[in-house]
Amino acid sequence: MRGLSDPFHPSTNPAGYLVLLVAENKLSWPLLKAKMEKVGEIPDWVSGYGDLRGEDNFRTQVAKMMEKSFIGAPVDKECIVAQAGAGSLIDTLCWCVAEEGDVCIIPAPMYSAFQNDLYARARIRMKVAHTKHPEYKITREVLEESYQSSMKEGGTPKILLICNPCNPTGLIYDEETLEMCVRWCAEKNMHFISDEIYGNSIFPDVKFTSVAKVCRRLNAGPSKGSDESNYLGNQVHIVSGFSKDFGISGMRVGTLFSHNRDLLSAANNLTYFQAVSNHTQWILSQCLADEQFLQNYISDVQRRLYVCYKGLEEALAAIDVPLTPAQGTLMAWADFRKYLPELTWEGEKQLWLELFDKAKILFTTGKSCQSEVPGFFRICYAWPKATDEDPAIAMKELKSRLIKHFAGAKK
Amino acid sequence: MRGLSDPFHPSTNPAGYLVLLVAENKLSWPLLKAKMEKVGEIPDWVSGYGDLRGEDNFRTQVAKMMEKSFIGAPVDKECIVAQAGAGSLIDTLCWCVAEEGDVCIIPAPMYSAFQNDLYARARIRMKVAHTKHPEYKITREVLEESYQSSMKEGGTPKILLICNPCNPTGLIYDEETLEMCVRWCAEKNMHFISDEIYGNSIFPDVKFTSVAKVCRRLNAGPSKGSDESNYLGNQVHIVSGFSKDFGISGMRVGTLFSHNRDLLSAANNLTYFQAVSNHTQWILSQCLADEQFLQNYISDVQRRLYVCYKGLEEALAAIDVPLTPAQGTLMAWADFRKYLPELTWEGEKQLWLELFDKAKILFTTGKSCQSEVPGFFRICYAWPKATDEDPAIAMKELKSRLIKHFAGAKK
Repeated sequence: MRGLSDPFHPSTNPAGYLVLLVAENKLSWPLLKAKMEKVGEIPDWVSGYGDLRGEDNFRTQVAKMMEKSFIGAPVDKECIVAQAGAGSLIDTLCWCVAEEGDVCIIPAPMYSAFQNDLYARARIRMKVAHTKHPEYKITREVLEESYQSSMKEGGTPKILLICNPCNPTGLIYDEETLEMCVRWCAEKNMHFISDEIYGNSIFPDVKFTSVAKVCRRLNAGPSKGSDESNYLGNQVHIVSGFSKDFGISGMRVGTLFSHNRDLLSAANNLTYFQAVSNHTQWILSQCLADEQFLQNYISDVQRRLYVCYKGLEEALAAIDVPLTPAQGTLMAWADFRKYLPELTWEGEKQLWLELFDKAKILFTTGKSCQSEVPGFFRICYAWPKATDEDPAIAMKELKSRLIKHFAGAKK
Repeated sequence: MRGLSDPFHPSTNPAGYLVLLVAENKLSWPLLKAKMEKVGEIPDWVSGYGDLRGEDNFRTQVAKMMEKSFIGAPVDKECIVAQAGAGSLIDTLCWCVAEEGDVCIIPAPMYSAFQNDLYARARIRMKVAHTKHPEYKITREVLEESYQSSMKEGGTPKILLICNPCNPTGLIYDEETLEMCVRWCAEKNMHFISDEIYGNSIFPDVKFTSVAKVCRRLNAGPSKGSDESNYLGNQVHIVSGFSKDFGISGMRVGTLFSHNRDLLSAANNLTYFQAVSNHTQWILSQCLADEQFLQNYISDVQRRLYVCYKGLEEALAAIDVPLTPAQGTLMAWADFRKYLPELTWEGEKQLWLELFDKAKILFTTGKSCQSEVPGFFRICYAWPKATDEDPAIAMKELKSRLIKHFAGAKK
């Protein structure tokens, strides 16, 4: 891609492309890198085979981090499986809980690569459930409509997959929505996968509730036949990892948290093919074990993300483009309909190309996110890498390019 | 496993179990570890997405190392795909070149985990081709018999998979055998996978020939419609990696070398689910780039392996057990038939249990290696970790335990 090989940099390449379509957060990498470089002597176990689902201390540290940060409920390390990325785990989950030709319902707008995760190996077909602008609420009606339409087409939905906080909108689903999803899936005998890979990438003072907390309220306690060791039940599974919250997609570390023992055991076997490097596990364990570092790191990520998001808000306000008010992730969802040459997918594509060619700005099209209507773009604002002094410097550049590009355009 | 949690160590646990069933080589790990600890500052690209089939410099270094050491023919980095272990790549190869229900022929005795690699995801069935004691030669007749028998059973063989040097026998296949395999596969329109994961784990002064060199002789040159960029053709593929030759199975790095462009492209897509940590790739690139280190390291591995193998030879000679003369790998194949209570699989199991219970020695059973006759064991002699002063100290312990155990037994 032309844009990727010539990226904007405030001092070394100010005329480069503003590549705002890759879901990576480079803002706090220097902090993590410095920590990783100080972890000391490599222990011998790193070289050998070990527990394929993740080394014991790694799972211990991951479980503790999850419990204290975004999950907010007890996480047993025995219920964690690590694999080479969250995509790996969605592939594994699909392979284990559904059959070829079954259907996975995904509310849209959605992360475009989910379709490959479902289909490439497990051959699970995707059915989109369109939520409505501007709130993009997942309702029972939206799910039911998608379910019935899938049944008519001959595919039985076996999985509901949501991303919370949501890629691409940056919205967080409230507890009532999550409870509805859990109950609806139970009713339909479907598995519910909650992709919480942005669970720690939320803005300061925003409250995120994991589906784990909801399940614990619904299921825990001996009176309900459940306890701390299985409050998720057998059909709710949480995927997360280090790619987004820790900004290290290149290190390929995803995690599954599930109370379904049969699934955990099946996933362990598949993990042989998609395991995480022990060396990478060891380095991350060392970083997570330092609680002070971890707390600082998460605050730093959240603070920088918010500064950049505010910068994006300002950039779009300058050209009067509405932005879905985000609460987290590292992307947001902007309504460029007023600048479309025509209100069609062709019009969206034209505007996208025009921004690329003339303003050197690269967004993700709404079409690839399965938007219901044309004219929306996903904007990843934590990329490219900004300076330490001014994390939002790329957003200032975006603002000036947008103003210049749309000067004199219809408002 | 009881044995694994109480392993022999010459000074700290002399009465522990001699666990000689894990295919790991710990003999040269201190060298590699020291090198890995000196690689310097982590580059930024490590954190982000990159080329999923392997970062450019990593593939460059791997190709150079392969070319100069065990391959002995030009290796183009564009024809390399890295995944999380050699097992990952066999799974990927099966997925890409055959269909569910197709058959893969594997000469036996064989590495027992191949069956899972073929079947777990790709659902390819295994058909064993029994080679004969004591030479274990792969002949056209052996392959043809297995092919015909598979066809009779209703499964079409689509793949021939060999391990060269061979796990479990430690034998190297000669050029004539490899040429016959290549020609036979072409005739049958089958893919030929040569697993050369022990390609650098050969004894000093032993000659190993990769199937690449054979194919280059057979195919290269414009007169044969082929050149350096595709001399393997579309149906020969070489799997290798870092687990065995570099003793780092826990770091999950396998490599595929193929000239089949469609396959490479399909494998790239699957690599998303089973990619190697960029951080691990970076560290290994740094180690490989130091040619002096690399050369020393490979010599060190080969020298230590041979010392241990000679120790094993001596241990077995002391109880008059024949050993198939190995040329490499880190395991050898021993004929314990004379000590079997009866010449049956039950007898083999009894002897295995007796050695485990009474002598605290753990071998791999011949049965699990698909041996044609009972009474053989696979012995991994590069494990447990030996001391720097005496790499074969575990083999000396083995000798004394074997003598003690079989004292007075029939000879």
